[in-house]
Amino acid sequence: MIELKNDRLLRALLRQPVDVTPVWIMRQAGRYLPEYRATRERAGDFLTLCKTPELACEVTLQPLARFDLDAAILFSDILTIPDAMGLGLYFTEGEGPAFQYPLRHQTDIDKLSIPDPTDKLRYVVDAVSLIRRELAGKVPLIGFSGSPWTLATYMVEGGATKNFRYVKGMMFDQPHLMHQLLDKLAQSVTIYLNAQIAAGAQAVMLFDTWGGILTTRDYLEFSLRYMQQIIAGLTREHEGRRVPCIIFTKDGSEWLSEMTHTGCDALGLDWKLPLNVARQRVGEKVALQGNLDPCLLYASPDRIRTEVADILASFGHGSGHVFNLGHGIHPQIDPEHVAVLVNAVHDFSRAYHV
Amino acid sequence: MIELKNDRLLRALLRQPVDVTPVWIMRQAGRYLPEYRATRERAGDFLTLCKTPELACEVTLQPLARFDLDAAILFSDILTIPDAMGLGLYFTEGEGPAFQYPLRHQTDIDKLSIPDPTDKLRYVVDAVSLIRRELAGKVPLIGFSGSPWTLATYMVEGGATKNFRYVKGMMFDQPHLMHQLLDKLAQSVTIYLNAQIAAGAQAVMLFDTWGGILTTRDYLEFSLRYMQQIIAGLTREHEGRRVPCIIFTKDGSEWLSEMTHTGCDALGLDWKLPLNVARQRVGEKVALQGNLDPCLLYASPDRIRTEVADILASFGHGSGHVFNLGHGIHPQIDPEHVAVLVNAVHDFSRAYHV
Repeated sequence: MIELKNDRLLRALLRQPVDVTPVWIMRQAGRYLPEYRATRERAGDFLTLCKTPELACEVTLQPLARFDLDAAILFSDILTIPDAMGLGLYFTEGEGPAFQYPLRHQTDIDKLSIPDPTDKLRYVVDAVSLIRRELAGKVPLIGFSGSPWTLATYMVEGGATKNFRYVKGMMFDQPHLMHQLLDKLAQSVTIYLNAQIAAGAQAVMLFDTWGGILTTRDYLEFSLRYMQQIIAGLTREHEGRRVPCIIFTKDGSEWLSEMTHTGCDALGLDWKLPLNVARQRVGEKVALQGNLDPCLLYASPDRIRTEVADILASFGHGSGHVFNLGHGIHPQIDPEHVAVLVNAVHDFSRAYHV
Repeated sequence: MIELKNDRLLRALLRQPVDVTPVWIMRQAGRYLPEYRATRERAGDFLTLCKTPELACEVTLQPLARFDLDAAILFSDILTIPDAMGLGLYFTEGEGPAFQYPLRHQTDIDKLSIPDPTDKLRYVVDAVSLIRRELAGKVPLIGFSGSPWTLATYMVEGGATKNFRYVKGMMFDQPHLMHQLLDKLAQSVTIYLNAQIAAGAQAVMLFDTWGGILTTRDYLEFSLRYMQQIIAGLTREHEGRRVPCIIFTKDGSEWLSEMTHTGCDALGLDWKLPLNVARQRVGEKVALQGNLDPCLLYASPDRIRTEVADILASFGHGSGHVFNLGHGIHPQIDPEHVAVLVNAVHDFSRAYHV
């Protein structure tokens, strides 16, 4: 086993002392990088890029060659599980992901089986193994999955949606059916993340992109509950180290306190709340990850540095903070601005760690 | 002056006793109604519908003929002010509103002048007068405007946006310029709403559709501050009655307490928080308006009734609640479901008022 040279991320997620605040960026392997666009061009289409371990590995490592990041995150799509369930995932230019066979009826959901990660999701597990080997202990590798509720929204709607008509229709009128679907998804995600951990993922993150469109009552019943179920089934130690788990509900700042009861180690934050307020809400229970407004990367380098300083000051002294954006980086961002951000986090945070 | 036969809305907004909880629906005059689609067809295009007082009056009154609603709301667009400022508003099918001349530079903003409501916005004032006359005291008429921040997002982006690149770029890198723009907009909105009040609007509402995409710090500085400036300049009494003012920031539940300090009478709520929690946060300072998830209208009549009962129970006894959706009604909703909602609010709420 190769020694991990930079374990700041894992330590900060467990609120253990660090020298500087670790930083990584959601969608750090992405369209804002010309080298990513070149690999994607070579792959031909997005799904081939996701499904070819060598290419997924290549793009995962690209941002690490440019920036002093403290983590790699598996390059993949959140819809790999529904794809493996046979819903027929495809991508249309400008429209985003879509499914040939959306779920609308009891029979659709009865037919779903839990994907074997060594079969239809083998390409993900292989990518994780390959990335771990290529990283050679430089930084830890984060694995991830969409949350059950978020996966369900795409599966029931048949793609991206603005109005959530069908998925909420099912939730309101056939809650029993929705729970069946979410339970199958929670089981699938658990097995999927455990396979990523077994293959070498050193931390895992659940992306709950659409939990924030629910009422408090519905969020607790249809989203958070299934994230808790997943966490209860996760491998929590591997290779002699704890595998931290991060959960992130976009627009979920109202529920931070409830989220700390799931057994996760850290909460991802969007940019709504200042970190000192978020820290008060979660107490000493979990670490926090975030929370720069992604639009700040459009601003000047000086403005970026000021904002980084403000966010670090808001969190204050001590460990338990992983710097990140509050959502994925936009494709139009200048990579030079990312370098400014990453360096500012390391430079300015030293004063908060002793 | 014709006597107002149903003043539940005005009384509830001022937390005065009522017999039943009043109800109206955001975008109640809209595409879900076949009679609206017929008038819109006759008008030819959306802007003609907005700019022809007789047609605006016709669609404003349509939902009142169908449902036992407790208020009418002026049919208009939130972008009338930027249009009157000369930005060249147009609508494209499926893409929403856009401006021919978006604001990007100091010179663009220097050139803006505050529209005279008796000139370029005359069609709005005329529509208000006409609607008041046609209502003949049946229910009160609500006037409205977009908030300065929300108007600015469209004006700087040049239309609807998903990433808010230019408007946030200006806010972060040229805050002085953004403040100039917002101040001009706040002055314009104040004059515009006062003209609506003079013409007969009996309550007014500020729609802050995009305040919720800001950090807490930026919301207070760039959105809420200018709503407060407007409220300070509003005519607060007309025709011998107080003119209540409602402010609504979508995704703004974190800031309810700060919003109560603006001098408004009521807060519009999205569906994130249960009403009892929202009520605790605002104390006895303001009334609350909301907050059914608009997707609930896709559900069965029985499910709609259950949810109405739950929301009324969550608010509990006493006045200070206006029932509404947490956002505009979707175009696909069955009008019969709206009737179920409106009747359920009146039937079930009687028990909470003595």
